[in-house]
Amino acid sequence: MISLTVALGSRSYPIYIGQQLLAQPHLLTQHIHSKQVLILTNEVVAPLYLNSLLANLKAYHCATVILPDGEHHKTLDSIELIFQQLLSEKFSRNSTLIALGGGVIGDMGGFAAACYQRGIHFIQIPTTLLAQVDSSVGGKTGVNHKLGKNMIGAFYQPQVVITDTEVLNTLADRQFYAGLAEVIKYGLIADAAFLSWIEQHLSQLLARDPDALAIAIERSCAIKAQIVAMDELENGIRATLNFGHTFGHALETLTQYREYLHGEAVAIGMVQGALLSKHLGWLTDSEVQYIQHLLRQARLPTTPPATLTTEQYLQAMAVDKKNKDGNIRVIGLEKIGVATLPLSVESSILQQTLVDSFKLSI
Amino acid sequence: MISLTVALGSRSYPIYIGQQLLAQPHLLTQHIHSKQVLILTNEVVAPLYLNSLLANLKAYHCATVILPDGEHHKTLDSIELIFQQLLSEKFSRNSTLIALGGGVIGDMGGFAAACYQRGIHFIQIPTTLLAQVDSSVGGKTGVNHKLGKNMIGAFYQPQVVITDTEVLNTLADRQFYAGLAEVIKYGLIADAAFLSWIEQHLSQLLARDPDALAIAIERSCAIKAQIVAMDELENGIRATLNFGHTFGHALETLTQYREYLHGEAVAIGMVQGALLSKHLGWLTDSEVQYIQHLLRQARLPTTPPATLTTEQYLQAMAVDKKNKDGNIRVIGLEKIGVATLPLSVESSILQQTLVDSFKLSI
Repeated sequence: MISLTVALGSRSYPIYIGQQLLAQPHLLTQHIHSKQVLILTNEVVAPLYLNSLLANLKAYHCATVILPDGEHHKTLDSIELIFQQLLSEKFSRNSTLIALGGGVIGDMGGFAAACYQRGIHFIQIPTTLLAQVDSSVGGKTGVNHKLGKNMIGAFYQPQVVITDTEVLNTLADRQFYAGLAEVIKYGLIADAAFLSWIEQHLSQLLARDPDALAIAIERSCAIKAQIVAMDELENGIRATLNFGHTFGHALETLTQYREYLHGEAVAIGMVQGALLSKHLGWLTDSEVQYIQHLLRQARLPTTPPATLTTEQYLQAMAVDKKNKDGNIRVIGLEKIGVATLPLSVESSILQQTLVDSFKLSI
Repeated sequence: MISLTVALGSRSYPIYIGQQLLAQPHLLTQHIHSKQVLILTNEVVAPLYLNSLLANLKAYHCATVILPDGEHHKTLDSIELIFQQLLSEKFSRNSTLIALGGGVIGDMGGFAAACYQRGIHFIQIPTTLLAQVDSSVGGKTGVNHKLGKNMIGAFYQPQVVITDTEVLNTLADRQFYAGLAEVIKYGLIADAAFLSWIEQHLSQLLARDPDALAIAIERSCAIKAQIVAMDELENGIRATLNFGHTFGHALETLTQYREYLHGEAVAIGMVQGALLSKHLGWLTDSEVQYIQHLLRQARLPTTPPATLTTEQYLQAMAVDKKNKDGNIRVIGLEKIGVATLPLSVESSILQQTLVDSFKLSI
C-alpha cells in the first residue's frame, strides 16, 4: 500500500492506494470518531460493495442512502434526501459520512457533509478510476444546477481517501475510459514524461493491468495533491486542473448531464483546449493531432456532437467559475506538459476554436 | 464610528458600528471587489432601505432578491431562488452578495454566498437589533430544516459588517425586544457587570436612546467577536453563546418557525436554562426569578406555550448540533455571568426543568 499526503495544515489527510484495502477495516475505522456513520452510495455500487463495507462497520450505527446512478442526479434534491436521513437518524456533528462510489457520489457526499450541522466528518472511498485519480482528492464538493455545472458547492476536505484499485475490476468499460481522460490530463498540464509513459503503456492500462494502473493512479494523485497543497481554494495554479473543463462543463450542461460522462466531456474539451492553444501560437497542428489521437486510442470521444452549435457553447461557457466580471476564461497549454492560468480569450479566437472542433474528423 | 475586529487570521474582518453609516458609501465599496453585486433583502426592509443602498452602488451592476419576511422562509427553497438569480445574471466567483436585513436574511445570504461557486464575497448590513448584536457576527450561516433549526449551513465569514444603529428607529417593537434577549444573553453568559448595566439602563434601551443602544451593541459585539476569535468552529467556548438556544430551537421547530421570533424563543429558553442550572445546584431560586423578571421587563415571553408538552420538547431537543452520539447537551450557568460548556444532563433533570418551566407564572 502507498500512502500520499495532501498537505493542508490542520486539514491534511492521507490517500491510501493499493489492492484489497476494503478488506482492511482499520484503514477506515481509525478515521471515524463516533458511532454514527452514514454511507452514501448508488444503485450500481451498492450491490457490489455495500455489504462488505457494512460488515467492516458492525461496531457502528450505520445508515445508508442509495441514490440512482448518473450525473443528472447530482442535484440539491438528492442532497436533501441525505439531510433527511441524517436528521431522521438524529446524527450528531461528530458523525461521519462515507461516500462509496464515483465522482457524483463523492461530490454530493462531500457537500452534504460540509453543510450538515455546518460540517461533519467525511471519508472518500472512490470506486471509479475518475474518482480515484481526480474527484476524491482536493476537497471540491458540490452539485450541478440546471443553469451550470458544479455551480453550488463547498471546499471541504475529507479525513481520508481509501483507493482500493481492486474495485476497478468491476468498472464498466465506458466509466474506465472516462477515468483515463483525467489521467491523460495530468500528463498534458503538468508532466510530459508521464504523458509519454501513458502513451507507451496504454495497452496495459486498457487491459487494466494492476501494476500499470497503480503507477497511473499514484502519479495522478501525487500531481493533484501537490497542486492542491499549493492552492487549496483555487486562487491560482489549481485552475490548471481545469484544462478541458470549461468546454467540457458547457457540453455537460447543454446535454442536461445525461449524454456524456464527465471524463468524456473533458476529453472533447481537452481537444478544444489544444485547438485554442494552437490558435494562440503555442501548440503545433501535429501536437493537437497527437493529443486527439491519444484520447481516441483511450476509447474517448474527441469532437462535440453535431447537434450543438458554437453559439450554444459560448452561452453555456459564460457560466463558469473561472470567469471574472462576466468574461469567459479558459485554461490553455503553453506546451505539452505545461498549462496556463485562466486566460481571457478574444471571442473571435474562442469562436474559431469551437468552429474548428466541430470540423475535426471523428 | 466604532470599528471592532473579528480576529480570524486571513479571514479577519471589521465591524463598523455607528449612526448613519449607510450614508457613507465608501465604508461599503472598499470591501467590494468586482462590478457584480447581489443584494438580498426582504419585503419589510426593501421599502425602507433598498433604494438608498442602490443609490450608493450606482457604479456597480446590482441584482436584487427580495424574499418574504419570516423565519419560516429560511429554507433551501429560498436559497435556490438566490442561486437562480446569481446564475441568470452570470455572476462570477469574484462577485459580492450583500445581506440587507435581519438574522434570517443574513443567515441565508451568508449560506448562499458560501455555496455559490464554492464561495463568493459576502457583506452583512444588519437591520434588526438581533442581527446587529448577534447573528451578523461570527460567520454562522444556514437554513432551517423541517426536522431541525439551523441544521443546514456553513461557517462563512463576511468581508465586513456595517451596523448602522439609525435603522433601529424603524424596527417593529416586537423585533426590538427580541434583539434585547440576545443582549441580555451576553450579560448572563460572560459579563455580570454588563448585565447590571442593562438592568439599570433598561428604560433608556426600551426608549431606543441612541447612546444607550450604542453601548449595548458595542459591548455585545465585542463579547461575541472575542469568543468567535477564540473558537471559530465551535469546538469549545463558542458553544456558550448557545445558552437558551437548545430549548429555544426546539420551541421554534415545534411551532414551525411561525409563532416566535428567534429572540423570543431564546428568552423562554434562557429561563429554562436558568431553571436547569438551579437543579444542578448553581443558581438560587431568586436568581432564576431575577433572570425571568429582567426578560419580562424587556417585554419578552418567559414561559413555553401550554399547547406543548415536555415529551415534545425532549423529542425536538434530540436534534441539536451540540448533541454528541445522540445525547442531548445543554449550556448552563455556573453563576450569573459565567456559562458552562455543553452538558450531558440526566434526562430526569431535563424533564423536571421542562415541567417547572411550564409551571412558571407568566
